[in-house]
Amino acid sequence: MKLGCCYYPEHWPEADWADNARRMIEMGLSQVRIGEFAWSRIEPEPGRFEWDWLDRAIDTLGDAGLEIILGTPTATPPKWLVDSMPDMVAIDAEGKPRGFGSRRHYCFSHRPYREECRRIVTAMAERYGEHPAIRAWQTDNEYGCHDTAISYSAAAAAAFRQWLAQKYGDVDALNAAWGNVFWSMEYHSFDAVDPPNLTVTEPNPAHVLDYRRFCSDEVVSFNRLQAEILRAHSPGRDIIHNFMGFFTQFDHHDVGADLDVASWDSYPLGFLEQFWFSDDEKRRYLRQGHPDIAAFHHDLYRGCSNGRWSVMEQQPGPVNWARYNPAPLPGMVRLWTLEAMAHGAELVSYFRWRQLPFAQEQMHAGLLRTDGEDAPAAEEARQCATDIKTLGEPGEIPKSVALLFSYEADWLFQAQPQGKSFRYIELAFEMYSALRQLGLDIDIVSPHADLGGY
Amino acid sequence: MKLGCCYYPEHWPEADWADNARRMIEMGLSQVRIGEFAWSRIEPEPGRFEWDWLDRAIDTLGDAGLEIILGTPTATPPKWLVDSMPDMVAIDAEGKPRGFGSRRHYCFSHRPYREECRRIVTAMAERYGEHPAIRAWQTDNEYGCHDTAISYSAAAAAAFRQWLAQKYGDVDALNAAWGNVFWSMEYHSFDAVDPPNLTVTEPNPAHVLDYRRFCSDEVVSFNRLQAEILRAHSPGRDIIHNFMGFFTQFDHHDVGADLDVASWDSYPLGFLEQFWFSDDEKRRYLRQGHPDIAAFHHDLYRGCSNGRWSVMEQQPGPVNWARYNPAPLPGMVRLWTLEAMAHGAELVSYFRWRQLPFAQEQMHAGLLRTDGEDAPAAEEARQCATDIKTLGEPGEIPKSVALLFSYEADWLFQAQPQGKSFRYIELAFEMYSALRQLGLDIDIVSPHADLGGY
Amino acid sequence: MKLGCCYYPEHWPEADWADNARRMIEMGLSQVRIGEFAWSRIEPEPGRFEWDWLDRAIDTLGDAGLEIILGTPTATPPKWLVDSMPDMVAIDAEGKPRGFGSRRHYCFSHRPYREECRRIVTAMAERYGEHPAIRAWQTDNEYGCHDTAISYSAAAAAAFRQWLAQKYGDVDALNAAWGNVFWSMEYHSFDAVDPPNLTVTEPNPAHVLDYRRFCSDEVVSFNRLQAEILRAHSPGRDIIHNFMGFFTQFDHHDVGADLDVASWDSYPLGFLEQFWFSDDEKRRYLRQGHPDIAAFHHDLYRGCSNGRWSVMEQQPGPVNWARYNPAPLPGMVRLWTLEAMAHGAELVSYFRWRQLPFAQEQMHAGLLRTDGEDAPAAEEARQCATDIKTLGEPGEIPKSVALLFSYEADWLFQAQPQGKSFRYIELAFEMYSALRQLGLDIDIVSPHADLGGY
Repeated sequence: MKLGCCYYPEHWPEADWADNARRMIEMGLSQVRIGEFAWSRIEPEPGRFEWDWLDRAIDTLGDAGLEIILGTPTATPPKWLVDSMPDMVAIDAEGKPRGFGSRRHYCFSHRPYREECRRIVTAMAERYGEHPAIRAWQTDNEYGCHDTAISYSAAAAAAFRQWLAQKYGDVDALNAAWGNVFWSMEYHSFDAVDPPNLTVTEPNPAHVLDYRRFCSDEVVSFNRLQAEILRAHSPGRDIIHNFMGFFTQFDHHDVGADLDVASWDSYPLGFLEQFWFSDDEKRRYLRQGHPDIAAFHHDLYRGCSNGRWSVMEQQPGPVNWARYNPAPLPGMVRLWTLEAMAHGAELVSYFRWRQLPFAQEQMHAGLLRTDGEDAPAAEEARQCATDIKTLGEPGEIPKSVALLFSYEADWLFQAQPQGKSFRYIELAFEMYSALRQLGLDIDIVSPHADLGGY
Repeated sequence: MKLGCCYYPEHWPEADWADNARRMIEMGLSQVRIGEFAWSRIEPEPGRFEWDWLDRAIDTLGDAGLEIILGTPTATPPKWLVDSMPDMVAIDAEGKPRGFGSRRHYCFSHRPYREECRRIVTAMAERYGEHPAIRAWQTDNEYGCHDTAISYSAAAAAAFRQWLAQKYGDVDALNAAWGNVFWSMEYHSFDAVDPPNLTVTEPNPAHVLDYRRFCSDEVVSFNRLQAEILRAHSPGRDIIHNFMGFFTQFDHHDVGADLDVASWDSYPLGFLEQFWFSDDEKRRYLRQGHPDIAAFHHDLYRGCSNGRWSVMEQQPGPVNWARYNPAPLPGMVRLWTLEAMAHGAELVSYFRWRQLPFAQEQMHAGLLRTDGEDAPAAEEARQCATDIKTLGEPGEIPKSVALLFSYEADWLFQAQPQGKSFRYIELAFEMYSALRQLGLDIDIVSPHADLGGY
Repeated sequence: MKLGCCYYPEHWPEADWADNARRMIEMGLSQVRIGEFAWSRIEPEPGRFEWDWLDRAIDTLGDAGLEIILGTPTATPPKWLVDSMPDMVAIDAEGKPRGFGSRRHYCFSHRPYREECRRIVTAMAERYGEHPAIRAWQTDNEYGCHDTAISYSAAAAAAFRQWLAQKYGDVDALNAAWGNVFWSMEYHSFDAVDPPNLTVTEPNPAHVLDYRRFCSDEVVSFNRLQAEILRAHSPGRDIIHNFMGFFTQFDHHDVGADLDVASWDSYPLGFLEQFWFSDDEKRRYLRQGHPDIAAFHHDLYRGCSNGRWSVMEQQPGPVNWARYNPAPLPGMVRLWTLEAMAHGAELVSYFRWRQLPFAQEQMHAGLLRTDGEDAPAAEEARQCATDIKTLGEPGEIPKSVALLFSYEADWLFQAQPQGKSFRYIELAFEMYSALRQLGLDIDIVSPHADLGGY
């Protein structure tokens, strides 16, 4: 297993880059992810590209011996682009635009924005696709983060109608499949179908379920567009996406089918705090994290892309985004790293190299403190580098128990829960946890997986 | 007392209708309510009526010996109608449209929609008004369900201004009555008065109270329009509406004055779960329902239309719409049925005949299961049919205690509560409950009722 | 210290005014605040002023020996004015207008509304500026009440851009200061910057902080416009504003710099109920108020305008606006009055003279009941008048401990809290409370205060 970190050369003086790279190597890191939020620096004005700084950053990092994972910057389109087509943003269930000023301010269904993505990804792939330091590509960043996989925009409505027409052929088939005779909800044409929001009471669950499938398919095709460009221009490099924890808004198995490596962003303390765990569990695991959260996702994402997987972002200290943000206990960063290795990760990449003194994540820890000195995680990363050498590569994970996980089932139970407190993913997690307590090795697999051998 | 059920021939193959009717009779049911959500099947396109299927359904049910309560389908206008006048939907307090995709997607104040209602109700009344199997009409369905009696649309604003002009004559009288000199809220014309939403802080409670009165009057006139058409074309048939539980958004006494029979929809477990009862009470009565909820409404609705009342929808098993949806204990459906009889109901009609395999209520139990076999309630209904024969008609309800219930008082206390937890309807319910525990017979009556004899 | 009350001659028959004034004097009151919500009576139609009633009210009160604090009526622009420029209202963070129908329905950044304010304030100042009974002016009323200091209107966006241009000179300086390189949030012109609402996830905290500073500056300049007019036309009269409790949406030190006297509105029971105190504390202090709430604000507002301060509105009984509105224990109104005196207040003015039988505050107690008889607070006010004579003026407040309070710090911690439950103002209050328990005299001072002598 390799170690790495997430680095943003555009955040720091160019004079520091070489020293930063040297210190990464010294710390035992061999990979570095860059670029995924840098659109406004790569293309500061429409059509005017500034490659020089990125050329130098890549060369500097590469020259130091680091392998680079280069991100496509499509999660943060610049203001000039949004201003040029304001309807590219997602619309929430209440009908409000989700505008510029943070990130992920785009609707997956907006076709002209897809063309912009094709343009910027092609430009990057053409320039860096065969650069020797480029080892892999990351598409976009955390699809769906901040509930962005579902949009109710006009673009989404139009694409949904096409999706329905393709699926059902004629509208009577749709009416029959959904049971629209109930409450006189029958349609006479696909054009009459709207997204299932802003209804008086709950919409038809079949309507909701198809909308969820459609939204998921939009993420899949959005990602595929980028993957195809990257594959064409950058032979031999892995295509990776960094998924999130406890996130089911789109079908990760479907996106994973277009990737070489499924990665995820592991924030054990943040996830404990943000999800359904009891106050008691939150207190008990406050500074170490619930013992099954990381493992559950390791085993889930191992099943998402032919067994190749990694941790693209590993929590190195307090985060800034949970309700409460404690520091991990000493040793936890090392433990989390080795745990990922035991589950078969190819890479654990710490997020981020150095804590920032500005913007949304200025309270988010890194391997370095804001002042450039080592933060507590730095020494743990160094220990891990030694541990990995000592331990050698882990053997093959034995096939023991397969836990089937269906994203579609999650959408279905959200649309028609048995009771208010029922959560499909919580059920899956509890089953996983129970199986782990029996000492079993678990593969979390898709409904289409081959179950032979378990 | 008669037993009946709610049936939707349009949901099932025509080949099953005769057998369904035969099984209803076999179960001891003598009435059946149909039609109230069937607009898209009666008039699939503007002005093109398809009566044949409904003719055959009515004939089939009538030929089996069932008396039919025919619903007007105005609670579910079809998509083509909404598309033809998109401003017919209600607007919520936040200014958002409450669109198509479930039911009750209309604003009571939208005059062109009223004309559509007049058209469809007239067409139905002309065709079936004197059909021998038609025993009664139900107007619309559950007025106000899903908080739909209050709308802040442009249509509502315009109608409110007219209502105010009629009530106050000149705007200075309105200013004086509301006390608009406070905070410089004086108006110079009725046209300047808006609905009381989207204000910076709470609007004038007199403004709110008049808006609530206006909204209630809109429901009353909406219902009256239908009642008058039905009376004209269907002599000798009862006009019924099915009210809801713990619902005060309009004055039921005023609507009841235009009905022959007030009915209500009794869901003892759902209501326990959805309203203000403590967790302790919810656990205690989980599968039987609070002992006073059904009785309270029986006695309330008996006072709403000259003493003639019924239960149009009786919970037969788990519902789908509460937070948690337990199954009633064995025997509860029978108990609820006989309790209604003891309070003087003319009819208890189970909702619904057969559980559906699709759409919003697919998790809602019926007398039959989805597969057509008996659900647990079927046998209890049969027992009730026997019980009713054995017991004979209950005697006159003695006049003992009158509990005065004022819908206007409820609106007033919502506009100006004494404290956050105060609810007028809860107070009335608690008083009712206390009186019941003293073994008293209670009539819940309107503020205009004759209190002689108590 | 003087006693006074808040009085609304426009709410009562003119025939009662003289008797009311006589009873105020009899009760020991010597000041009366009037006029702050009377715009619709002063200018019932655009440009048509009705001064006669106000002339007579001022003369009647003055002739009785009362000193008058005259309020500018800009917190309640009349409907005709709002109808003439509907975009003058504030827009909330969700994009919804905050319309007419209560009070404070204006955006501080709307320049044409400022011109209207200049017009009405000039007209009042010209007419009454040198009237011998006029002792002071109150600008507007409770700036920011009902969360109105922050608006996301087009007017606010335009003014924000100008404010940014003035602060940063060029947009690259803004990008650098905010760290907009993070997440590609860089702007190419000030015109591209929007208010920080409706973003997908949290906006840049630097963006938020500058918006908070801007919004505060808008309140300051709004107030200054009025203060300058009043000073020019009404020499020798104090300019006062009545601030609120636990309210930090704008910098009170900055507004206070343009005032002669900082006053605040003291509702000890209402504030206990509305803020963060535990249920236990709310029960314990239910009818007397938390022992430090009033003192905290006395010491805070003493530091807001060169040491001259007063209580413009003193709770005299139950209020109407908290979740629960208990009556103060007997003696509390007297205690609160004398407590203000001990902290150095120049005036305690009871809100209001007589309880109203209409509109939003009809459940809010006064010195008199709705029927004109004494409410419990009347006798306590009389006792206070005697107490004040007996006790004489309190000496100089000794300089002991300075507690530095920064409104900007509050905005910063709201934008980037350390944890969900952290509140800067709560921290300041807890520190104040701890220092009080040590028996210390506390001055709450601005970050720019001279700390010598402590």
